[in-house]
Parts: sequence; C-alpha cells; structure tokens
Amino acid sequence: MKTVVIGSGSWGTALAQTLADNGQDVTIYGVNAAEVNDINENHKNSKYFAETALNPVLRATTDLSVVKDADVVVLAVPTIAIEPICKEIDPLLTKKAIVVNVAKGFNPKTNERLSDVIRRCISPDHLSSVVSLIGPSHAEEVVIRQLTSIDAVSQNDADAIAIQNLFSNKYLRIYTGNDEVGSELGAAIKNVMAIASGILSGLGYGDNTRAALITRGLQEMIRYGTYFGGKEETFIGLTGIGDLIVTCTSVHSRNFEAGHQIGSENTVENFFRDNTKTVEGVRTAKIVHEVAKEKGIDMPICEEVYQILYEGKEPKDCANDLMIRKLKAEF
Amino acid sequence: MKTVVIGSGSWGTALAQTLADNGQDVTIYGVNAAEVNDINENHKNSKYFAETALNPVLRATTDLSVVKDADVVVLAVPTIAIEPICKEIDPLLTKKAIVVNVAKGFNPKTNERLSDVIRRCISPDHLSSVVSLIGPSHAEEVVIRQLTSIDAVSQNDADAIAIQNLFSNKYLRIYTGNDEVGSELGAAIKNVMAIASGILSGLGYGDNTRAALITRGLQEMIRYGTYFGGKEETFIGLTGIGDLIVTCTSVHSRNFEAGHQIGSENTVENFFRDNTKTVEGVRTAKIVHEVAKEKGIDMPICEEVYQILYEGKEPKDCANDLMIRKLKAEF
Repeated sequence: MKTVVIGSGSWGTALAQTLADNGQDVTIYGVNAAEVNDINENHKNSKYFAETALNPVLRATTDLSVVKDADVVVLAVPTIAIEPICKEIDPLLTKKAIVVNVAKGFNPKTNERLSDVIRRCISPDHLSSVVSLIGPSHAEEVVIRQLTSIDAVSQNDADAIAIQNLFSNKYLRIYTGNDEVGSELGAAIKNVMAIASGILSGLGYGDNTRAALITRGLQEMIRYGTYFGGKEETFIGLTGIGDLIVTCTSVHSRNFEAGHQIGSENTVENFFRDNTKTVEGVRTAKIVHEVAKEKGIDMPICEEVYQILYEGKEPKDCANDLMIRKLKAEF
Repeated sequence: MKTVVIGSGSWGTALAQTLADNGQDVTIYGVNAAEVNDINENHKNSKYFAETALNPVLRATTDLSVVKDADVVVLAVPTIAIEPICKEIDPLLTKKAIVVNVAKGFNPKTNERLSDVIRRCISPDHLSSVVSLIGPSHAEEVVIRQLTSIDAVSQNDADAIAIQNLFSNKYLRIYTGNDEVGSELGAAIKNVMAIASGILSGLGYGDNTRAALITRGLQEMIRYGTYFGGKEETFIGLTGIGDLIVTCTSVHSRNFEAGHQIGSENTVENFFRDNTKTVEGVRTAKIVHEVAKEKGIDMPICEEVYQILYEGKEPKDCANDLMIRKLKAEF
C-alpha cells in the first residue's frame, strides 16, 4: 500500500511517522520547501516539534504528482483547504484511493461536513471511500510515541479496517466505527467547547467548573449530532467525549489556548489581531450558531462562545450567564 | 431548616460554609476538638485549607446531640464510618430528617450502596429520605467559592428539590436527579478510574492516553451501573462523566494522587506503608473486582487496578496489557 500524507503540519507529520514506524511506503506532501527539506535532511519538523528526532526513513516532497498510484491519501490540512486540495489531486489520482481525513470542522463556505466535501470533489473513479481518523490525539504526543487510541470511521467497513490495520501499532491503537455523522459532528463541535474551556480557565475558574462545562458541552454535542442522525453512543466514545476531554484540558490544544487568551484578557481583540494559526473552533462556532438557529437546536454554550467571538460580549459575563439559568432537573 | 453536617473534613467544611453563606442555620459536628476549635475560634480549617478564611458565622461542635431537631443531616464521613454514625445518630434524631450523603463508595463490610446502608440504619420515623450530593466538586474549590455544578439525587423528588434550594447559590448550582443507583455506582467506580489515571500519569503517559482511559472507563461504569438498574443517561451527566473527569484530571484528587505515587514508583509498597488518608478507590477496586467476577461483568480497567493493588502486578505492565487487546470496533 502506497500512502501520501497531504500536509506537513503537526498531525500530518505524526501520522506519516507512524506509517514509517510500521514499515509502510509513505511520503509527506508539503507546500513549504523549507519544512520539506527539514524533514528530508534534518529528520525534524522544527516548526512543530523542535526537540523531536523523526524516524529517518520519513520522506517529504513539494511535488503533488506523488499522489499518482497512491492507495491511501491522508488529508492533513485545515478545513478551509479540503475543497481546493481535493480538486487539485483528483486529476492526478490513478486508482480508487481511500481518502483519509483528519481535519475537524466544516467547509467554511458551504457548512458541509468534510466527508461530504471529499465525496463531492473526488470523482468516483478515484475514491474507494472516505475514512476519518478521529479521537483524543495531540500530535505532540503521537510523534513521541505516547499510547494513543483513536477511531477509523467510515461508511465502508472494509476501508475502515484497512486503515485500522495500516496505522495500528504498539503506541497507536485504532478502533473502527461507522457513524460518520456522529463522529464528524462531535469532533467539530468539541473545538467550540475547548474555546469555552480555555475562556473559563483564563478567567480563573477551576477544575469543578471545567468538568461541569465538559459535561454540559457533551449534552449539546449529543443534541446537535443526533438531530442530524448521529448515534448517541458515538458521543460517549473516543470521537465524542474522548476527543472533547483532551481538547478541553490540554495545553497542546490551539482552541483551548485561544480561549485562554480571550478569557485572560477579557476581550477577543488581541486574539483576532495577533493569531496566525488555524483555530478551527472559531469558524465552527459561527457555523453552529447559524445552523442551530435555523434548525431550532438549543446550544447555550456554543451560543455564548459565538457571542464572545462575534458579538462583542464580555467573557466574564459568559460564565455567569450560564450559571444563573433556572434551577432544574439534570435530564 | 436546621442542618447538621457530620464530619469536619474538607467536603463537610465546604458544604457547611455554603449553607452559612446562604444564611442557613448550620452546625458542623466533628470528633477532633482541635479542628472544631480551629473553626470556631480562628474561622479556619487549617488541616485542609491552610490559606482560607472561612465564613466567620460557621460554628462547629464535638457534641453529637446537636442533631436533635435537625431537619437535614449531612453525612460527610468516609464510607467506612457511614454505618456506625447512622446507628449513633438514629436515637438522637427527633423528627423525620433528610439525610444527605456525600461519601462515594460502598459499605466495606457488606458491599451495599451507601443509600441502602442509611435506610437500613436510620429508623423510618427519623428518615424523610436519603439525598446524595454527587458531581464534579473538589472541596478545595467550593471553599473558595469557585463555580461548581452537582446533582442532588433522591428517590424522593420533593426532598431532592428541598436540598437543591437549600444549597444552591451563585457559586454552587444544583440539579436534581432520581437515578440513585446510576449516580451512586458512577461516583463509586470513578475513584478506581482515578487511581488508574494517576498510575498512567505516574508512569509518564500523556493527555491522549488519559482521555482514552477516561472514555473506556466510562464504558465500564455504564456496563456495571446498568447491570444493576442504573440509567445510561446518568453516566453521561454530572454524577458520571462529570465526576469522572474531575477526579481523573485534578491534582486535588486523593485517588489520582495515590495512583500517581504507585505509577511513579512502579509499586504499591510505599503507598500502603505510608498512606494515612481515606482513598476510597482502593476499597472500591476490591469490591468491584468481587462483584464483577460473581456477576460476570467485563471490567478490564478496574481489574488491572485490582491486580496492581492486591495481586502484586507491576503498574508498567498494566497500560501495555490494556493496549494490546485485539483490534476491534469501538462499539
């Protein structure tokens, strides 16, 4: 099996190294020549993993024609790049590839789920199926081979199992799943919750508040996800609560970090002025706000995050507004 | 309403202060005269909260007859003390009191749930009903009035609402629940998971591993709890995943701390020699092991913790043994 990983960012690099560790034929495609050279010549990806020596067999290229003959193409790019990269690689593919997506969010122009975008943009002759790799998995830990468990989710069971077998090893344990809707929606919305968690942390709230937020956040994810046909059990698995926990509690999370800055400064101003990284939850908060409003889905935490990011609400008012809701039964 | 809090430990003190903050008639009963004096004279509980000035109206006593006339009795004692204290207070009560339990675990002699112990040991003339206060709530944060959300769980809806109204304020938000079995079993088993989480942390594993552990641990809690008639939804609420998260991720948790020591040292020896605190998960692991074996409930994480605590298994073998199980579908 020949695999090409599109994207030389942190997750693309960590997943490609996993395949290299497994003795697989794998190449990273990146647009940045300096990053590609860093991988090929120094066996490092200094931008993301300053201290880590990568598996020396790992190779990268700036030539997209590498996807020719690929059996597996891993899309490790931001949500905003999924549609253009699919359109770019489609004419270059020469067989029915399994396209693995690891981005989490929605198409920012159409609000589509990413698996739907991929199926729309890759011609049927070049696509076996879409498999999503989702679960609690900071790249910073996978790249140093920390024990990690995630799901390979697909409408096509055989392809999910193929990806499970391709990536699994002693430090990366992959389960299969087939609830594409539940897994993708959970993974997307959890980034909004991570911003909320960061905001509370930045405001000085502690572990009790965060645990309550995650618990109530899970309820919102279930409400939203089951509305669109996701299964409730998916949300209490690795792609739901698992990914939610790691993103809401880890210093490695960009969404948490963004929220933390916004909470500490009690304003979004500096964040929007200075941020240069992809913080998917910022876009997702807007999409969830729009869709939830249109469909009448009650999403109070997502709505608070939206109000802070886009409507000038002060973060310090957010926690209080969530807290003073009427006393009631939990379920 | 007159409330007596039995136990001058950290959670008893924090809950009693909450009632004092709410302007309620509340007294703490403690067995340790020095601690009682510390509360009355210094307005501190230095053993648990060295830096915190307590609400100065808070009063404590070593005279158990204070429970006479009580409308509400809060049992803030270790699981091992629930049965003896109930037998001691029963003859002193003069009306049907709501007995609130905040201990988490089982009766170590009979393996009963704590609500069942209370109903067995308090005569019907003295017991309105049992209400359990359960949720993500480190005392260290409640005592400094950090935003916290928990459940008041009872078979008696009116009493749950009475306790909800008694304790709720701007920093403590109480929801009601009626799934006593699910809430109590979740709260008990989560302490075993917290030991497992501490062990992994002590062994050097990171956030990805912990999130996977919590996710798989939740499945075990659901499996055990629903076997005994608990509702699945309870486990994805504050008394389930909420309490599980806070206990598995917080430095305030004694169970996590115990596991961390055991993992760091790769042995239980020093922990069992030196520990003087109540670490409920240690007892709970043994009871869950026995019951799960008898009933045929699959509890792989609890079983690993049991093996480490009681059967001499090396902690470093534990994570690996969980990881190398056969690859499969998540659900």
